[in-house]
Amino acid sequence: MILLLNYIDLKYKPSKKDLICEFYLEPNKISIEKAASNVALESSIGTWTDIATMNKRVARTLKPNVFYINKRKKIIKIAYNENLFEKGNMPEILSSIAGNIFGMSAIKNLRLMDISFPESIVKSFKGPKFGIEGIRKITKIKKRPLIGTIVKPKLGLNEKEHAKVAYDAWVGGLDIVKDDENLTSMSFNNFNKRVIETIKLRKKAEKETGKIKIYMPNVTAETNEMIKRAKFVKKHGGRYVMIDILTAGWSALQTLRNANLNLVIHAHRAGHAAFTRNEKHGISMLAIAKIARLIGADQLHIGAIVGKMTGTKHEVKDIGENIENSIIHEKGTHMLEQKWYNIKPTMAVCSGGLHPGGIPPLVKIMGNNIIMQFGGGCHGHPNGTKEGAIAIKQALEAVMSKKSLKNYSKTHKELKIALDKFGIIQ
Amino acid sequence: MILLLNYIDLKYKPSKKDLICEFYLEPNKISIEKAASNVALESSIGTWTDIATMNKRVARTLKPNVFYINKRKKIIKIAYNENLFEKGNMPEILSSIAGNIFGMSAIKNLRLMDISFPESIVKSFKGPKFGIEGIRKITKIKKRPLIGTIVKPKLGLNEKEHAKVAYDAWVGGLDIVKDDENLTSMSFNNFNKRVIETIKLRKKAEKETGKIKIYMPNVTAETNEMIKRAKFVKKHGGRYVMIDILTAGWSALQTLRNANLNLVIHAHRAGHAAFTRNEKHGISMLAIAKIARLIGADQLHIGAIVGKMTGTKHEVKDIGENIENSIIHEKGTHMLEQKWYNIKPTMAVCSGGLHPGGIPPLVKIMGNNIIMQFGGGCHGHPNGTKEGAIAIKQALEAVMSKKSLKNYSKTHKELKIALDKFGIIQ
Repeated sequence: MILLLNYIDLKYKPSKKDLICEFYLEPNKISIEKAASNVALESSIGTWTDIATMNKRVARTLKPNVFYINKRKKIIKIAYNENLFEKGNMPEILSSIAGNIFGMSAIKNLRLMDISFPESIVKSFKGPKFGIEGIRKITKIKKRPLIGTIVKPKLGLNEKEHAKVAYDAWVGGLDIVKDDENLTSMSFNNFNKRVIETIKLRKKAEKETGKIKIYMPNVTAETNEMIKRAKFVKKHGGRYVMIDILTAGWSALQTLRNANLNLVIHAHRAGHAAFTRNEKHGISMLAIAKIARLIGADQLHIGAIVGKMTGTKHEVKDIGENIENSIIHEKGTHMLEQKWYNIKPTMAVCSGGLHPGGIPPLVKIMGNNIIMQFGGGCHGHPNGTKEGAIAIKQALEAVMSKKSLKNYSKTHKELKIALDKFGIIQ
Repeated sequence: MILLLNYIDLKYKPSKKDLICEFYLEPNKISIEKAASNVALESSIGTWTDIATMNKRVARTLKPNVFYINKRKKIIKIAYNENLFEKGNMPEILSSIAGNIFGMSAIKNLRLMDISFPESIVKSFKGPKFGIEGIRKITKIKKRPLIGTIVKPKLGLNEKEHAKVAYDAWVGGLDIVKDDENLTSMSFNNFNKRVIETIKLRKKAEKETGKIKIYMPNVTAETNEMIKRAKFVKKHGGRYVMIDILTAGWSALQTLRNANLNLVIHAHRAGHAAFTRNEKHGISMLAIAKIARLIGADQLHIGAIVGKMTGTKHEVKDIGENIENSIIHEKGTHMLEQKWYNIKPTMAVCSGGLHPGGIPPLVKIMGNNIIMQFGGGCHGHPNGTKEGAIAIKQALEAVMSKKSLKNYSKTHKELKIALDKFGIIQ
């Protein structure tokens, strides 16, 4: 006698021990109830047909419930018992709730919009070691947004050229210099040599300016190599490492966090838009950001709103709130309740096509707890990196003292030249 | 004086030292040339504006070239100098060619269709330790496809129940038993205990049947934990491990391969369809499969054609050829030339909604060098797992002896019962 299960229960009240997922769901030639049921079973205990090996104990203790269906908006919510997941194992959790389901013939489109993690799962992860408070303590920057650059060109400079560009940016007034997401250890620019050269000039810039300066070397690699590189950074006086969390993967991010090297982890999201961009399918950037915070990214790229990449104002703002606050209240659809318990806040990084003329609207939307990273918006200054950095610093000064860029640029020529090239975003 | 670069050169002849990418590209309100140029620069050395730090040496040695544009099919091809990439570092390579580009406002849709890796990059990876030949040597199965099951329900059975289902499948005639992609170490089913119980019954089944039987325990986790689990498998007489390569990530797969534990690596692709499914955006499964082979997956899920998941006949067949052959010849669009040099072939795994009635068309399309995995198609047999396994074995016997399932089932009752439930796919 094969046991038949029903995965839909609209009267079900989610428990505090449930993990909740919200999905956008377009069925493929079947009812939304049938498709929702398929999503629920394939992401938990079921398969495409009823099976002889299912038993009542499994059904009673582990069957998830689709408890919300909005046919007009095509939104469903599923409550999963926490025991369906291995605590502290993000790949396992995602192989359930963001695994096979995207490929089922039963659905036309499916998007994981948000995940609400229960206490037991939140507490099974470490979260950021430093978080916003730790970053402000290290940098001694109390209130204002942090400003930084990415060394450009993305690839091609040798170690000394790289360090020199970083130096120019620091003495121009930027707090942070970051490697590009595709710069690791190259034939023309060796990782170890670059770290030594760049930290040497970082110390010089710190001495000359009297300020703390940050360098974020990109340790993205196979995990043993990654840890070796991170230890090299630590040994040579570095305070930060960066990693491409999606091309390296979640296991690698957790390995870096668990290594507990006392280095701030900067998370770059290269590749996310392969699955976050389509509004109807894939995984939302919000879900990705929550996962990155849970595992332990101290800083995370979430979008620039006014830059070269997609990502609407509301989307980026919501992500920022989710990674920076302690309690998230449910907000219509696409934002589930989330208590973060022991997990520190991750600092939002806004980057991608930013220039000084975009600072006022970005700070207005996102507030002061952000890091703004400028690539072309710094080195694209007609007079080069140092003046580009000065212009960015001036634009931030204008915003913090509530002056308009236009007025401020009348007495600040570096800013004037930058705005003449890049314009002002209203 | 800022250096201006041109990334389009339709007369450029790719060199053997180039990595070639084919993209499907829909521009966003600009010309395809302009959008292609944006893709080329963002995936290599450029950014959204011209920069003062670019120099002639970098441009001359590293600038990629868009050398093919098909406006009607919306296909472009880009040749990247091999020095743009760190050898042996797949996350770095992907952060270039499958990174920021998907999120650019300059494109509406962008899909990485195929990647042709040059010799230097191919040879910087280990590839499969065993490959098809190694797998056939271990299993002593010379010619026919391998058949296996996934223990179902996906989650919920305890260690002993799990081992018993595996045992039933083995004595019924299946070669392989695999953990499900979301079964790792759970509150109700501990990894170590499961491995011990299941390998114990594997040895019993081997003794009773006189055949080699395979168990593939799922070691997906943070990488140190993953390696610990893999070593536990090895210590207790296991020959295989499986990993969810996309939710764990590329760094983790490489760490597992580099650990060189003399275990066959079975790669599950849970989550791939979040970015492979949309035909216009994301990354093709073909590209993913080539990457998995390069790093070192001995076996890889590529689709079932006749099952519950999407994936057309041509697509799955092309992927199969790409991971199993030594030289791939360019074929119209979507399949670039590839020489695999020292890299062994990866065995294709067909899985997802398979049942005995699907075996004839699948083997006809894919040939004998495949592993067919049956979940519901085994345990969904009305008389349970063992008879389900017998039915699968009988269906394969029919195919190998060129008999029709319908005729063969007249004298094989387990197959008859299975076909009556699942039907026959023509």
